[in-house]
Amino acid sequence: MPVGTVKWNMSDRKPTNSGLPDTLLGRRKRLLGSAYRLFYDQPVHIVRGEGVWLFDADGKRYLDVYNNVPHVGHCHPQVVEAVCKQLQTLNTHTRYLHETVLDYAARLTAKFPAGLDIAMFACTGTEANELALRLARARTGASGMIVTENAYHGTSWAIAQITTTYGTSEKRADNIVTVPSPDSYRGPFAGDTHAADKYAACLENAIEELARHGHRPAAFIVDTIFANEGIPAVPPGYLAKAVKTVRDAGGLFVADEVQPGFGRLGSHFWGFEKHGVTPDIATMGKPMGNGYPVSAVVTSSEVVNAFQQHSHYFNTFAGTPVACAAASAVLDVIEAQGLQAHALETGRYLKDGLKELAANQPMIGDIRGSGMFIGIELVKDRASREPAVFETEKAINLLRENGVLIGSTGQFDNVLKIRPPVVFTRQNADLLLEKLSTALTAAGVESG
Amino acid sequence: MPVGTVKWNMSDRKPTNSGLPDTLLGRRKRLLGSAYRLFYDQPVHIVRGEGVWLFDADGKRYLDVYNNVPHVGHCHPQVVEAVCKQLQTLNTHTRYLHETVLDYAARLTAKFPAGLDIAMFACTGTEANELALRLARARTGASGMIVTENAYHGTSWAIAQITTTYGTSEKRADNIVTVPSPDSYRGPFAGDTHAADKYAACLENAIEELARHGHRPAAFIVDTIFANEGIPAVPPGYLAKAVKTVRDAGGLFVADEVQPGFGRLGSHFWGFEKHGVTPDIATMGKPMGNGYPVSAVVTSSEVVNAFQQHSHYFNTFAGTPVACAAASAVLDVIEAQGLQAHALETGRYLKDGLKELAANQPMIGDIRGSGMFIGIELVKDRASREPAVFETEKAINLLRENGVLIGSTGQFDNVLKIRPPVVFTRQNADLLLEKLSTALTAAGVESG
Repeated sequence: MPVGTVKWNMSDRKPTNSGLPDTLLGRRKRLLGSAYRLFYDQPVHIVRGEGVWLFDADGKRYLDVYNNVPHVGHCHPQVVEAVCKQLQTLNTHTRYLHETVLDYAARLTAKFPAGLDIAMFACTGTEANELALRLARARTGASGMIVTENAYHGTSWAIAQITTTYGTSEKRADNIVTVPSPDSYRGPFAGDTHAADKYAACLENAIEELARHGHRPAAFIVDTIFANEGIPAVPPGYLAKAVKTVRDAGGLFVADEVQPGFGRLGSHFWGFEKHGVTPDIATMGKPMGNGYPVSAVVTSSEVVNAFQQHSHYFNTFAGTPVACAAASAVLDVIEAQGLQAHALETGRYLKDGLKELAANQPMIGDIRGSGMFIGIELVKDRASREPAVFETEKAINLLRENGVLIGSTGQFDNVLKIRPPVVFTRQNADLLLEKLSTALTAAGVESG
Repeated sequence: MPVGTVKWNMSDRKPTNSGLPDTLLGRRKRLLGSAYRLFYDQPVHIVRGEGVWLFDADGKRYLDVYNNVPHVGHCHPQVVEAVCKQLQTLNTHTRYLHETVLDYAARLTAKFPAGLDIAMFACTGTEANELALRLARARTGASGMIVTENAYHGTSWAIAQITTTYGTSEKRADNIVTVPSPDSYRGPFAGDTHAADKYAACLENAIEELARHGHRPAAFIVDTIFANEGIPAVPPGYLAKAVKTVRDAGGLFVADEVQPGFGRLGSHFWGFEKHGVTPDIATMGKPMGNGYPVSAVVTSSEVVNAFQQHSHYFNTFAGTPVACAAASAVLDVIEAQGLQAHALETGRYLKDGLKELAANQPMIGDIRGSGMFIGIELVKDRASREPAVFETEKAINLLRENGVLIGSTGQFDNVLKIRPPVVFTRQNADLLLEKLSTALTAAGVESG
């Protein structure tokens, strides 16, 4: 989950560890410390989940509009059963032979273009991106990384370095350079008829900047839906051009599918397919096990063989029979329920509803995205496109009060992020539209 | 799990990805690629686990002598039930309030000395060490890392850099320096009456080496049982002296408790307690959830507050209600069954048996360790202490044939590593001693 995309309770920022009340909030500050954040001005105390619904301790029901981890729905019984059955039987590691990990690896790699036929397992998106980074460095013998501005890729040291969306005291090393997010609405080349070429040309500048510091590019990594960048409408052709530039300089293209993957986008199973470009390495995680910690890297034998000349790979909790049972059950549900087609259909319905809503809501500056991954950019004025930062935060907190859990994203946190469990229905969309209308009106009036 | 501690099947090293037979082994090479390794000359196809037992596809039963992840026994019903119950109810993240994570954080931090009162959650030992490294750098403003030779700390980019036990093509950065493992049997100061002082003095050299490259020490990190270093008998007083030297130079001490933690050592709940030294940061993982992916960092508010000035922390799958339900159930079982005392008692019994065995087995050069973490160093000759490398590998494969799964560790992979589920009994110890006697005799004859 792209953290920091919802404004947190400011009082939660204050570092203090004593004299705190024995409430959940007080205990939390005392026991988890000052580096954790909560959603909402009034944090939610969730005790139960089912499908697209979350329930708080008072029995209040919330429509979940942003949690992508419970891909096939909170606590889906088929996934829970698969996990529990395997937990009762065996839960060891990948240094023994086991069918489940191989069967799943076969199913997963079958979802990729020819040549991307090897699956390696990790536990989190961070770990998958860590492995991708190590593989890319081994394959290219280079160390340069090119990433978009305002990107999120994870939380370890090296991945925090390429997570450009947060401020940090950890100085970015000179082997990491950024390029603008290919944003058709707000970026430096928004509205430009040559936006694809101009954004792609930034990769040449990035490669030159790396060269000035003595680096060659190992990889260009992007979240293929650019979730933290604000889910921008990407100028058609941009990514293919950008990737060609990187490959011409000897670098690989890593598609971070942790957020867009597994059919969420409706039109395609993976985000890279939408851009008409095949990665050298793809990483995936969050929805993969519907909440059980499992992630993966899919790549070619050429890439793995370069890595294995000097290193091998093992991850204790990764690729276990239980992790693969969870991931297999998720694929079963996606396929049996046709959830990719469902995401496409419901996404179109919701987008149509949002366009209607926009006619009466001048704050809605732009609507974009695909399937069950939609961004609504809120602006103070459609002409100036000034970000409606306060109004977005206000709307999110009003929606929370009214039983709808939603978040924001983008450079200014002014893009409402719709990224629910993909089992989200037309009825759920209708409820969202109704509540959104009320909240946007109220947020607009208050700020007006 | 410290990988590479058992010799793998050499045929598994060959990078090839086509023309492989449709056996489990062939499918594995094709689907998982060349960077994965298997245990044993004849890899084991495990299908079921229960307590200290693993069962292969032919129904053959193996005594598990090395898997530390199933701390309270494979597929422990109480842990399975706790996980399944929570999976059916809710599995969200730490941006909502939830009692389970706070209750567990309170129980976990209560196991630590005063001042170490904050728990932060991750999914794997690697991620816990990553967070420890970021915390240490933030707290000290320094970047130098001091690690022991032949250490294992994990698999990400930064942690692979401080994992000194493997060869790698990834050049170690000059902010990382090594010190010898404080080995009383084999190291540079083995047998020296001033070994503790002399090993500790190596920290001064390390700090000077860092200074020559313009670095100050951020942290000295050790696995407090030195598992991959060969489970050495550490000269009494060494660690306290070493830590003082590091602290005097402004660095922190990180205790990696991923392997020794949770009562395995019998005499203490954590490894650092055995050395009479309190860490600034402790990391834990593997046994914590009995196989459910969960890990943690425990530290002080001073350390977290330094970090949170510029960064915050979130990890999607970490500290979830399910992860904390698993971890709580493990603590329940440890406490209800008195497993720390059990580990102490069974460990003493086994060590006594091993000493008796040594009378008739000249290959046994040294027996050491604590509780359910014991090392048996095999040598060709007790006077020269030449490592019995081939014989160790032979014995491990013979034991596998005879229904006992054991591994090796140490610089020369000549230390048999006994690290079973802590529910291991005297009867299990008797069976191990019997099979070990046969295997050592056969391995000695074959090599003789």
